[in-house]
Amino acid sequence: MLLINDVTAVTMDAQRRILSNASIAIDGNQIVAVDTSDVLKTRFASAEQFQADGMVVIPGLIDTHAHADQSLLRGLGDLMHWIPFLDDVVEPYLVKRDPADAVLANTLAMMEMLRCGTTCFVSPNVDPRDDYQSLSEAIGNLGIRAVLGRFIIPASGKDNLEIAKTTVNAAVNVMNKWHGSQNNLLTMWFGLDVPRRPGDTDHPYFYKTVSEQAEAMDVGIVYHFCSEIEDANYIVDNYGVRPAEWSKDNYALGSNVLLINGCQVTPLEIEILAETGTNLVHSPVANMKMATGILPLVDVLNAGVNVSLGTDGALNNNSYDMFSEMKSACLLQNAIRQSPTAMTAQTALEMATVRGAKAIGREDDLGSIEPNKMADLVLLDLKQVNTYPIHDPVSNIVFSANARNVHTVFVAGRKVLDDGCITGMDEAMVLQSAQERGEKICAELKLSGSNTWPVS
Amino acid sequence: MLLINDVTAVTMDAQRRILSNASIAIDGNQIVAVDTSDVLKTRFASAEQFQADGMVVIPGLIDTHAHADQSLLRGLGDLMHWIPFLDDVVEPYLVKRDPADAVLANTLAMMEMLRCGTTCFVSPNVDPRDDYQSLSEAIGNLGIRAVLGRFIIPASGKDNLEIAKTTVNAAVNVMNKWHGSQNNLLTMWFGLDVPRRPGDTDHPYFYKTVSEQAEAMDVGIVYHFCSEIEDANYIVDNYGVRPAEWSKDNYALGSNVLLINGCQVTPLEIEILAETGTNLVHSPVANMKMATGILPLVDVLNAGVNVSLGTDGALNNNSYDMFSEMKSACLLQNAIRQSPTAMTAQTALEMATVRGAKAIGREDDLGSIEPNKMADLVLLDLKQVNTYPIHDPVSNIVFSANARNVHTVFVAGRKVLDDGCITGMDEAMVLQSAQERGEKICAELKLSGSNTWPVS
Repeated sequence: MLLINDVTAVTMDAQRRILSNASIAIDGNQIVAVDTSDVLKTRFASAEQFQADGMVVIPGLIDTHAHADQSLLRGLGDLMHWIPFLDDVVEPYLVKRDPADAVLANTLAMMEMLRCGTTCFVSPNVDPRDDYQSLSEAIGNLGIRAVLGRFIIPASGKDNLEIAKTTVNAAVNVMNKWHGSQNNLLTMWFGLDVPRRPGDTDHPYFYKTVSEQAEAMDVGIVYHFCSEIEDANYIVDNYGVRPAEWSKDNYALGSNVLLINGCQVTPLEIEILAETGTNLVHSPVANMKMATGILPLVDVLNAGVNVSLGTDGALNNNSYDMFSEMKSACLLQNAIRQSPTAMTAQTALEMATVRGAKAIGREDDLGSIEPNKMADLVLLDLKQVNTYPIHDPVSNIVFSANARNVHTVFVAGRKVLDDGCITGMDEAMVLQSAQERGEKICAELKLSGSNTWPVS
Repeated sequence: MLLINDVTAVTMDAQRRILSNASIAIDGNQIVAVDTSDVLKTRFASAEQFQADGMVVIPGLIDTHAHADQSLLRGLGDLMHWIPFLDDVVEPYLVKRDPADAVLANTLAMMEMLRCGTTCFVSPNVDPRDDYQSLSEAIGNLGIRAVLGRFIIPASGKDNLEIAKTTVNAAVNVMNKWHGSQNNLLTMWFGLDVPRRPGDTDHPYFYKTVSEQAEAMDVGIVYHFCSEIEDANYIVDNYGVRPAEWSKDNYALGSNVLLINGCQVTPLEIEILAETGTNLVHSPVANMKMATGILPLVDVLNAGVNVSLGTDGALNNNSYDMFSEMKSACLLQNAIRQSPTAMTAQTALEMATVRGAKAIGREDDLGSIEPNKMADLVLLDLKQVNTYPIHDPVSNIVFSANARNVHTVFVAGRKVLDDGCITGMDEAMVLQSAQERGEKICAELKLSGSNTWPVS
């Protein structure tokens, strides 16, 4: 038993209660009580007492779009349009890197996430060639929660029921092996690929098979959707329907589906997402940086679609920092809707917590500070020059806080960041390796970034 | 003599050289040499050696729009349109606060700035009722560089040559007293007010007098300009000219003038700013948050106008963090111009350094790391999980770094932030006072922020 004492708890429970002078009782990996410190100190007098006087506690942030394997190439996607970005950087990197590089990249990104208060992330398109054993171990060592969307596509490029079943079964074997590993920190999803541009092929049998299998396994499906003008137009030009219609026709929508980006969605498509209970993850920083388009976020939210937040990655953000996403989501909507009331800090925090939990089908055990939920908690030291005074803690969290305010992080009751120190692995070693391997890969791929200033 | 050794120096000199394995020699308040560490360690063997192995050094960031007196009200401008924002928050605060509150607010904001690598800021509209003695002392104690635009307006509301001269002379007496104080850390400017909305009056004699006096004193003029649709339209409706034309007619443009915002500028006005050599400060975060409009920044830069960056303040940002401004400037332009190449990290860093120096008429001694310039330096520890690996230091500085990477800061050769610790004042005391006074002022002003969630 652990009792975190004398905090302000921004619970994100159904009533969105903010409790001052609160304590949070943790038993094993779960929260067992949230109440005033007076009450809980008496009730749990024999528990280990963790004094966190004056800190503000929020649920662990959930980054539902994080290409954690890209951190070794930080900054090398600057100034790139998405098609050369994929063809000249992402794809060659996937081919050239060895499995240890992917583990290293994920490890670095996960460390950054923990330092930014992210306790759970969704990595779409996890490469089948990756070393899942080592990846799983890194997740377990760091103690972060990961949803890995294992990339799946018919190897032959052909499509019939038999090929679809063979492809999906092969993936399922791998997924079953790792799903739930590391004491349930690791969840395996299907990372789908749908047509986005000339040369892409579609696989109707395959999509249907994935959908059925995901339902049978009670896991999710994640894929990039209707992100850019070009990919939306490609669907319209080739299939005569909008991307959401195409996805619906291909069994690729639903409450266990997480769509990435959706910047180009039309009102019709927003309705379809709402009707099918499909989730959407918004990555405002990467969308802006790469100029992929501007999601009509407020319209999507108003239609009742569950929208979460994500960072995208080190290649087009170039951070894994959910504080920045929360703030940027508000800034972008206010700017384009020409209203300072378009987006509230409250909605942004919901997107990073409860809505993120719902997006990954975990609203029952993640996303808020309540009894029987997982003890995924971020202790923020807001008594700092950038976040003081506190008149409205939610405003300070969304608009003023940054990674420097993240003091201590718990995932499933384990202290994974302790007063600013990552507890599960040695940071310095990872940093050193990341620089060495990052440089080596860049040299191999002949990537040099966009700097034009003389370096000597 | 101090020698900062074994760093990467992003010099921002005329060639924009980036020097690896570099040292920076400081004598008193000035940089005296920048060269390879090998060379300088021999040349300055008897100097105090400061080992900063692997750090990246940039010129001190210059925040050219920072209402440093607003920090006590952090977050209380959320969701507000600019007119009620001014009428219901800013103006009552100016009336209600006592001079000690303004000093406290400035102190808190200056501490935040130092922690964010800001070594110089422009505070427009510094209230004539403020306690300049204490403000000057706080600036000196913290060791930050401040340009205070003393707010000036004819007290009578009337306008003729005599009133104008009386008003300006009274201001000049105060300005002369503090201009150059604290070993030249403090610079006094004119903080002008021009008509923005119904009820505002104009004072042509007064503007001309200020302009002449500023030129005579070799100081600058700063004012809010053409920020919102409403204030631009007000000028058009009342004077039949665009705001830049109005400003030109009123002697309120020129190379010693710093215009704030300018979101609504037309192509004609951009030309006028370029022709007159007028400077413009862009505050992308606050502009987006308050939905005041989107500056066509790239067009303004392409026309040859000097544009710098600013944070605006704790009421509409809600931070004093120039890293966030650099990144947001890029994100916003890329998004609205629908191109990932619209704004580069390089341009953003220029706006925060050399262009900022030029905006305040200090291009000769601030803004870059060169011999004979002031030793205003920021040592960034980029060997952190959010900024590693480093392939392109400028990209990592602009897109990946945050306040957590700011390790040590020098202003005029003095170490004002030492390994994350502010050296000049006790932070804890300031924080405590800020909360107490902030709460008291809010109670007096009946300000409660925009939180709608139940707090208990």
